[in-house]
Amino acid sequence: MVNEPGTGSDATIYDVARVAGVSPSTVSRAFSRPGRVSAQTADKIREVAEQLGYRSREVARTAAKSTTKVLGLAVADITNPFNFRVIRGCQAAAAEAGFVVTLNDAQESESLEREMLRRSLPLLDGLIVASSRLSDTELRTVAKTLPTVVLNRRVAGLHCIVPDMGHGVRKAAELLLALGHRNITYLAGPEASWADGMRWRAMRDTAKDLGFTEHRVGPFAPTLQGGRGAAEVIAARRLKAVICFNDLMAIGLMQGLAERGIKVPEHVSVIGFDNIFASALITPGLTTVAAPLTMLGDSAVRYIVASLTGHKAAEAAPLSVPVRLIVRDSTGPA
Amino acid sequence: MVNEPGTGSDATIYDVARVAGVSPSTVSRAFSRPGRVSAQTADKIREVAEQLGYRSREVARTAAKSTTKVLGLAVADITNPFNFRVIRGCQAAAAEAGFVVTLNDAQESESLEREMLRRSLPLLDGLIVASSRLSDTELRTVAKTLPTVVLNRRVAGLHCIVPDMGHGVRKAAELLLALGHRNITYLAGPEASWADGMRWRAMRDTAKDLGFTEHRVGPFAPTLQGGRGAAEVIAARRLKAVICFNDLMAIGLMQGLAERGIKVPEHVSVIGFDNIFASALITPGLTTVAAPLTMLGDSAVRYIVASLTGHKAAEAAPLSVPVRLIVRDSTGPA
Repeated sequence: MVNEPGTGSDATIYDVARVAGVSPSTVSRAFSRPGRVSAQTADKIREVAEQLGYRSREVARTAAKSTTKVLGLAVADITNPFNFRVIRGCQAAAAEAGFVVTLNDAQESESLEREMLRRSLPLLDGLIVASSRLSDTELRTVAKTLPTVVLNRRVAGLHCIVPDMGHGVRKAAELLLALGHRNITYLAGPEASWADGMRWRAMRDTAKDLGFTEHRVGPFAPTLQGGRGAAEVIAARRLKAVICFNDLMAIGLMQGLAERGIKVPEHVSVIGFDNIFASALITPGLTTVAAPLTMLGDSAVRYIVASLTGHKAAEAAPLSVPVRLIVRDSTGPA
Repeated sequence: MVNEPGTGSDATIYDVARVAGVSPSTVSRAFSRPGRVSAQTADKIREVAEQLGYRSREVARTAAKSTTKVLGLAVADITNPFNFRVIRGCQAAAAEAGFVVTLNDAQESESLEREMLRRSLPLLDGLIVASSRLSDTELRTVAKTLPTVVLNRRVAGLHCIVPDMGHGVRKAAELLLALGHRNITYLAGPEASWADGMRWRAMRDTAKDLGFTEHRVGPFAPTLQGGRGAAEVIAARRLKAVICFNDLMAIGLMQGLAERGIKVPEHVSVIGFDNIFASALITPGLTTVAAPLTMLGDSAVRYIVASLTGHKAAEAAPLSVPVRLIVRDSTGPA
């Protein structure tokens, strides 16, 4: 059974409100913001609460609040499948360490993210930024006040954990080269995205290194719709091998190409990033670069727990985690 | 910019630790559990903290902690796509109401769910149970201590918000009947699931009402693997029209049938529940019963906010929300 901490009384805020003849919100205010309730009402509420054994629970709750360790997890968009395994990894490690996790879903809004972070900050003992619309400077300001880890993005001076994108792009290009492609296109995601910049840079480096011609189409939104919109450009320019910013765009691109009668992989080879759940279910299955997302979340929590217990210096140490290429049926001979 | 509440000082716990010559965890304990630090060390830390302006921040933080409203959201499995839109709905409404949201992902473990709930309970002003492995009795005990809403399950005495499953099953059966099917199978999910019981009961009622023969296969796990495992039974018994407990099972069933050379919808018609993201992307697209999951989360938050502000009685009032059938390509003529 889940028990209320520190008391055997069953009295609730509603019981106190009923016996005292006030609303539950007045009872709540009497304890949390005494100045907002008249002295007479506050006295009455305290008296009733004491009779019912309610006050002792409030006191126990306040004590528990100050000792409960809380970890904040910020994501730009909870509906992006990329985030699910990151959250699972954080949750599992946090549960093991005895932390409670708060979730900030910014719904892709910078101002909402800022507002939610400001609101939750007083509760937090540590912060994990899984994806964020905030600037490097803002993240550094936050990180001054509590141990912070940034995932999937490099911010100078902060502890960051990033998948090895250069290796992922190289593996994808090597597969396409082995299939006979000599022209490879990068379908770009949001310009403000750190990961997008890294992938395009890796494409150019790899092209020079392995000897193929790189193209760039975009930017498009990192969504199904974005990929679908790109299909027209890919078709018009007769591009035959496309590495996409993420799986959502890759799936959208495949849909857009199918609508134009263009077959994957017979006419165009498509590769994504993230290995989201749907990538294995669609036809043809999507070849994609998979990052160990659960591990990202897990490592972030371990770093914060270590920081708080003084076992590790709070130094910035960018950590690169390995990725792998999952070959399915969306890639074929040139 | 996101600012630390209540102070202009930039001093962190690490600064205090460095100047005082102790570990950050000792500084933390000096404020949160003074009894665990020697009096001399505690004095030194307090002195340094005061010099650096750190203590005033801790005080401000403690004050903010006691006034910040926190809503708990419990899910049995964050990786089940069913939960994403529920979480988004809760998050959006909570952000609007000025609440911070904590997320409990039980990873399908009853004991872990209990432990995480016990740990977060002192922080919470309200609780939303999106999916849970706990018993009705346990949920009622928790609900005595704070406003609670249960989603997608009916618990006597608690405020519950459930999709109108009876209507969903009826719409699915009507489609299959219109296509000429006279035998309809229910592929059952977990026996302990309230929704599973409701769906099967609705199947039997609808069969009597509309005049078809109902069959039941299962229970199977509510996952891709569960559906895949069911394919053998469906094939062996030559069943031609299947309504599945959820989309994951339906997609798994379609995969299992494809592996046996059985075509959907030519040989077997398949319908799911939930309208998860992948259902629209697979081939053939999955016909499914969609519940307004975002609205479920949104309604739950509004109920709790109303309870806390005394605008609504904390009475149990089961609320049924409408569902709709989304017809795609996994259903065809008998």
